[in-house]
Amino acid sequence: MNVQGVPYRTIWAEGGSVKIIDQTRLPHAFVVAELDSLEAAVTAIATMQVRGAPLIGAAAAYGLALAMREDPTDDGLARARERLLATRPTAVNLRWALDRGAEHLAPLPPDERAGTAFRLAARICDDDVDANRRLGAHGYRILQEIHAARVPASGRSTGDGVGVVEGDVDRLNVLTHCNAGWLATVDRGTATAGIYQAHEEGLPLHVWVDETRPRSQGGRLTAWELGEQGIPHTVIPDGAAAHLMARGQVDVVLVGTDRTTARGDVVNKIGTYPVALAARDNGIPFYVAAPSSSIDFSVDEGTEVPIEERAPDEVTWVTGKTAEGGVATVRVIPEGSPARNYAFDVTPARLVTGLVTERGVTEASTEGLARLFPERAR
Amino acid sequence: MNVQGVPYRTIWAEGGSVKIIDQTRLPHAFVVAELDSLEAAVTAIATMQVRGAPLIGAAAAYGLALAMREDPTDDGLARARERLLATRPTAVNLRWALDRGAEHLAPLPPDERAGTAFRLAARICDDDVDANRRLGAHGYRILQEIHAARVPASGRSTGDGVGVVEGDVDRLNVLTHCNAGWLATVDRGTATAGIYQAHEEGLPLHVWVDETRPRSQGGRLTAWELGEQGIPHTVIPDGAAAHLMARGQVDVVLVGTDRTTARGDVVNKIGTYPVALAARDNGIPFYVAAPSSSIDFSVDEGTEVPIEERAPDEVTWVTGKTAEGGVATVRVIPEGSPARNYAFDVTPARLVTGLVTERGVTEASTEGLARLFPERAR
Repeated sequence: MNVQGVPYRTIWAEGGSVKIIDQTRLPHAFVVAELDSLEAAVTAIATMQVRGAPLIGAAAAYGLALAMREDPTDDGLARARERLLATRPTAVNLRWALDRGAEHLAPLPPDERAGTAFRLAARICDDDVDANRRLGAHGYRILQEIHAARVPASGRSTGDGVGVVEGDVDRLNVLTHCNAGWLATVDRGTATAGIYQAHEEGLPLHVWVDETRPRSQGGRLTAWELGEQGIPHTVIPDGAAAHLMARGQVDVVLVGTDRTTARGDVVNKIGTYPVALAARDNGIPFYVAAPSSSIDFSVDEGTEVPIEERAPDEVTWVTGKTAEGGVATVRVIPEGSPARNYAFDVTPARLVTGLVTERGVTEASTEGLARLFPERAR
Repeated sequence: MNVQGVPYRTIWAEGGSVKIIDQTRLPHAFVVAELDSLEAAVTAIATMQVRGAPLIGAAAAYGLALAMREDPTDDGLARARERLLATRPTAVNLRWALDRGAEHLAPLPPDERAGTAFRLAARICDDDVDANRRLGAHGYRILQEIHAARVPASGRSTGDGVGVVEGDVDRLNVLTHCNAGWLATVDRGTATAGIYQAHEEGLPLHVWVDETRPRSQGGRLTAWELGEQGIPHTVIPDGAAAHLMARGQVDVVLVGTDRTTARGDVVNKIGTYPVALAARDNGIPFYVAAPSSSIDFSVDEGTEVPIEERAPDEVTWVTGKTAEGGVATVRVIPEGSPARNYAFDVTPARLVTGLVTERGVTEASTEGLARLFPERAR
């Protein structure tokens, strides 16, 4: 998508190395970083310079390629896989990309592995963009339908006008959590793919962006990328989503997923589950953009998925830009107080209105997913 | 309660002026500020140097007293009332304290008003502390009962050990949102009154503290005051409360209220409603500490209560302490992105297990509240 009008992907090969947008620096600085080794790729994933389930998969594929240039032996392949797999335990795309890579590379002679791995990583990237475009078309259709089914503006109470400015009563209000935008993928995004298409096709919309503490992927990344594409949006604290829903200011919720189980439980960024509860309590549709690469047919119950716990520092310290233009990090919790930092939660399938995949939309159930992916369902 | 071992109240009269703990400076600095005029009191309430429904009431009473020293005429009384009432629209204690003040002062000759107003404010403070102690005894009883009803530690899965350290499996896990602690009142707190009594009587407990964005009253104030009293606690991002509940790591939720309606709808800090939804979804009791001064029998539906909207800056900028020990304010949202900042939400009575008042515990219903407060119910 565009950054100051120039189209970018989040990851690409260039001149023998791999380039990424360093997402830890956004929105205060747009920095392209270079990954030139397996270790650099491992660090980029672990420190969340790249993040988002689909992008983690693509970055892992490139990490494998960089590793094959360093040590293309069977041992080197096994070690690279292990190192990359250990970076983030929850997103299934990581394992998916590494399994796919190992499957292709293992039968090859070592001297062919690096070249093949780079081509494979490039293909995973292209496939991701393609899948997101198709997924986005299905997401767009949902937004269109919900927009069409709304009570016409003139007959609608706009409450105190939250999110509604003069002439904007026709806008569809979409709420999203965390960043399932183009920054979470190679391009287009998953949840945002439908939003971008809607915007391109002229459907009037406005996006409520959950800040998404502690790492503020909503407030930092989703807000930034929507702003760069010129899409109206408003950032809210995570606790405010339910209130907006209760006041009729949200028409539909659309989020991403880091892993969706065979029966449709959704493991996504911490704070997704309470958003789903609020949507259910207010009769608001709750859709999950779930590219097939994020669906794990080997797990049934969301509670079986390992939930990554990250450093408490991400809760107790906040980084931002000072009024003078510098970047500063400040402690926001008293020094003697401990914090815990679970990165994901589980939204049970019963709270999910539908899963939006590149093959279409389905109910979040074993049957629904099996119908859409008969070749993968058990 | 204690600050570094020394007992304090949040507001008191001293040497002809009024002293407060400046809560905008906590937890990084403990500063006692002086209010010497009506305008100083108005500013202190509006900028949240003092906050929390009961403390706002006490501060308004002192504001009225300071005003009577400046202009004790009927005009002066009416103007002071108006200025103070406009500071915060949601908490009902403000109106309650001002009504009580005006009722006492209006019949008096002007030259007696200031003295009476100061005595009245002091009485409101003493009454608050007394009410909180009584409320706390009822809250303590609830915590005791829930603790006694727990499966004994040996037969209990501790999951992955969240909030549980060696030898602590017997601890009661209480979750709270925002600050309904002694800092929100004159002393003892409302939700925390039961927690403090439990701690004093040796009931083992641990408190999950919702950070409570955007102003982080949980992360800044509740964590600080629990730490000062030596009560085990852990700060979590607001979005993590539901996840902890789903994992069996929360035994009971206990929060405060800024206004409770005649039928038991609870208007409290933004983000309370999704916590109540998560408690309900996981079969966890959700109690609200509601001193009688916060119950508004003139309103039935929570949706009728005006919800204060505060400056978006409170969402987009964060203040904290740098590693070097200074205080810095940083922008955490992209410059082009707007934010909205609703201060409160409405938790419908149906999600409330019980209201804890100084007269006892009741169900959140018209009948329940009428039984406890027959002289006030309509």
